[in-house]
Amino acid sequence: MQKLLYVQLGDQITDQIRQGLYKVGERLPSVRELSKREQVSIATVNTAYANLEQRGWIEAKPKSGYFVRRSCLETVGLPETSNLKPKPRHMSVNELAMEVQRGVSNKKGSSFCAAVPDLNFPISKIIQRTYVSQAREGITFDQGYGSPEGLYELRQQIARRALGAGIQIGVDELITTAGAQNALALALRALTKPGDIVAVESPCYFGLLQMIESFGLKSIEIPTDAKDGMSIDALKLALQQWPIKVVLSIPAYSNPLGCVMPNENKQALMQLLQQYDIAMIEDDIYGELQFEGHRPKAVKAFDEEGRVLWCSSVSKTMDPKLRVGWIAPGKYYAKILHQKYVNSISLPSLPQSVAAQVMAQGQFDRHLRQARETYRQRAQHLIDLAQMHFPSEMRASSPQGGLVVWFEMPKKIDGTQLYYQCREREVRIAPGELFSVTGLYQNCFRMSFAKPWTLESEQAVAMIGLQLKEMMIKN
Amino acid sequence: MQKLLYVQLGDQITDQIRQGLYKVGERLPSVRELSKREQVSIATVNTAYANLEQRGWIEAKPKSGYFVRRSCLETVGLPETSNLKPKPRHMSVNELAMEVQRGVSNKKGSSFCAAVPDLNFPISKIIQRTYVSQAREGITFDQGYGSPEGLYELRQQIARRALGAGIQIGVDELITTAGAQNALALALRALTKPGDIVAVESPCYFGLLQMIESFGLKSIEIPTDAKDGMSIDALKLALQQWPIKVVLSIPAYSNPLGCVMPNENKQALMQLLQQYDIAMIEDDIYGELQFEGHRPKAVKAFDEEGRVLWCSSVSKTMDPKLRVGWIAPGKYYAKILHQKYVNSISLPSLPQSVAAQVMAQGQFDRHLRQARETYRQRAQHLIDLAQMHFPSEMRASSPQGGLVVWFEMPKKIDGTQLYYQCREREVRIAPGELFSVTGLYQNCFRMSFAKPWTLESEQAVAMIGLQLKEMMIKN
Repeated sequence: MQKLLYVQLGDQITDQIRQGLYKVGERLPSVRELSKREQVSIATVNTAYANLEQRGWIEAKPKSGYFVRRSCLETVGLPETSNLKPKPRHMSVNELAMEVQRGVSNKKGSSFCAAVPDLNFPISKIIQRTYVSQAREGITFDQGYGSPEGLYELRQQIARRALGAGIQIGVDELITTAGAQNALALALRALTKPGDIVAVESPCYFGLLQMIESFGLKSIEIPTDAKDGMSIDALKLALQQWPIKVVLSIPAYSNPLGCVMPNENKQALMQLLQQYDIAMIEDDIYGELQFEGHRPKAVKAFDEEGRVLWCSSVSKTMDPKLRVGWIAPGKYYAKILHQKYVNSISLPSLPQSVAAQVMAQGQFDRHLRQARETYRQRAQHLIDLAQMHFPSEMRASSPQGGLVVWFEMPKKIDGTQLYYQCREREVRIAPGELFSVTGLYQNCFRMSFAKPWTLESEQAVAMIGLQLKEMMIKN
Repeated sequence: MQKLLYVQLGDQITDQIRQGLYKVGERLPSVRELSKREQVSIATVNTAYANLEQRGWIEAKPKSGYFVRRSCLETVGLPETSNLKPKPRHMSVNELAMEVQRGVSNKKGSSFCAAVPDLNFPISKIIQRTYVSQAREGITFDQGYGSPEGLYELRQQIARRALGAGIQIGVDELITTAGAQNALALALRALTKPGDIVAVESPCYFGLLQMIESFGLKSIEIPTDAKDGMSIDALKLALQQWPIKVVLSIPAYSNPLGCVMPNENKQALMQLLQQYDIAMIEDDIYGELQFEGHRPKAVKAFDEEGRVLWCSSVSKTMDPKLRVGWIAPGKYYAKILHQKYVNSISLPSLPQSVAAQVMAQGQFDRHLRQARETYRQRAQHLIDLAQMHFPSEMRASSPQGGLVVWFEMPKKIDGTQLYYQCREREVRIAPGELFSVTGLYQNCFRMSFAKPWTLESEQAVAMIGLQLKEMMIKN
């Protein structure tokens, strides 16, 4: 039997309240609006609203309309949607990775899980002020979509900064992207087809492994030294044995090891790329976060044939939420530009303009000097705390820059189990399982040291140590 | 023989000026900065700068440093880069499509080429003011990357507006994207693998055809009626004969025909999707730009199994440069979220927040009412002008909404030739060649009527008519 029209309409509205379209205290559509939208009579809407009011879902306020009642969700029980997605204790690697990435924005507890910069440096205020002033100037009011290659002023600033990495490129050789992740995704898409093999570092940043898997590619993990980065000898061997299509690496402060590839290895790598006629995707996102001295030269600086696609962003040096990154794709320029164009036509112009303005100011370099020294001290403090609290068998990387430390425990420790135990106590780390598809790093985990140390976060490290020691005894 | 160090450095700097890193009148790095960056002595930098000054490239200003000389580019001839990319008269379809897309931002002449909204409505000022106020409130200063599913407040507004299209979805069933193009790209990536077949309308918006080709997919073009949209009978036949993986369509004000699929056809389409157990990607980007009456219901409104991925954006109703779009992926939610995550982690939060704020205001609906009536009048004026100036053999679509009119000429007219002839006169249209891979529409072209009519743009239509009449005689 068909329900009466006003009952149907009432059910729709209670569903919408449950689904979050209208929250407690928010105004519902006016009777006229609803009658027009649902193409029912004014009388039907009035009856539906009166019925909902009687049932305690909504309340009328004189001259302002109907509102979701403050108590309605309690009277009808918890919203159904909150029960729709239970979180299983054992997730797939993909789900685990996404949860780790999200964990950083947890308001409660201590988060060491994602390689996200501290956003309390003075540069954040400058970014905000620049946003306000750029918005006021009405930068968005050109016609059209903005160009696929990205804002000229930003590309100009990037070309200037590239000189610091030993890279000499023209403004026309750069394309802006939605962060470095997007640059790497465009590059992989343009250079590979499903089934192709990509050489990566081992351990490897999980965002890259997920991308490779999601694109239907295969990864081959090249042993990586905690000091010198990807082993050139091992890469040579792999190239002899496998039809590797592209090398994907973070030569400067590799995530998670924090190591830097020496210049002579970069030259040897370039020779291998030439010999096997393949390309390299260089993720240089941490390149400007050295703890001391000059920033490392990019592999791209040694590239005379346009084989290296240099990718980076302001996510670690300004704010990841700007989603401003770039790629210098060498001889693959046209392919990458077309990929970006079909993927999103262009990207928002205002964040690009803000990044360009901030880079053009001397304060940005001042910020980087301050950030480098601060991160160096925070890294040292994390290692000191780990030595104090973690089991004596632990080994830690000794990063020369970047935002993370890699910890290796005896084989009997399960990093994923540790992750769940910490999560219960509102403390977030990144389990080693995510950094390989081979299961090689189940006894490892990664911690970020970017945030300022507090009593709470120091106690969190002590708590992790306690968990580890318990696991050592139990297993 | 190796060049002297200061000569090498000087060559680098002149290259950088040619490449656009430093423009006429801009300050070059200080002697100290350059010595540090290039790791050469202060003396070498001083000699290099002195030499460049002598050769007329740069000039010193007391106490402020070295600047690129106003006359240097003339004295050394045109910058080399401007000769690097000659524009051939006959481009590939990809290049042609990108040029058409860019043509809209040409400052000179009249542009009818891209389906871009008029940005001179009062809503543009409101968007700008909202940008300023949102930036002031420091929306960007949460920790982390922003969530992969996108800003909650925006998804809430979208879920409310979806009701107008007959779609009832929860806030948790939506994912924000970088415009509708990005939504469609994520959907195609998630649902297909290279070699798969996608059913599209014919003629079909070229951005979709390019995406399909670029992803290694094949398109099958389904005859589309200028009034009723994609032919259901023809689709049925195609489904019987080919292993079609997904149907991609613009049921509301299809680009370029401006037609609307009737509700009974939408129901028949849903039955076909069920029968063949396939998905549909619905591009609803023009859905709210009806010329009169209610906006059309979306196909998604008839979808009870989560087979339809509903995609749209604010590019036609607010500003394409916001790059704010969305997708309601039905049962493919997890796949799409993962695609977005590996593609860019998240998207800039501020443009999302601006779009949400603007949608929440009553002014947005007021703007839509005004825009619909304005576009209706402008469309009528374009058709009137075409009837006045174009050869009498021409046929034109009669759009019921959206931003474009489709013109069909006798077979002897070449739309691509017309495009080049118009381009020489700084008038831009979209040649029919782009709207099919079959060569079916060589004698057609598309014109946008979004911009306000001026004497210049009216004369441009007369000029197009003149070209057409000449071509009629010559061929």
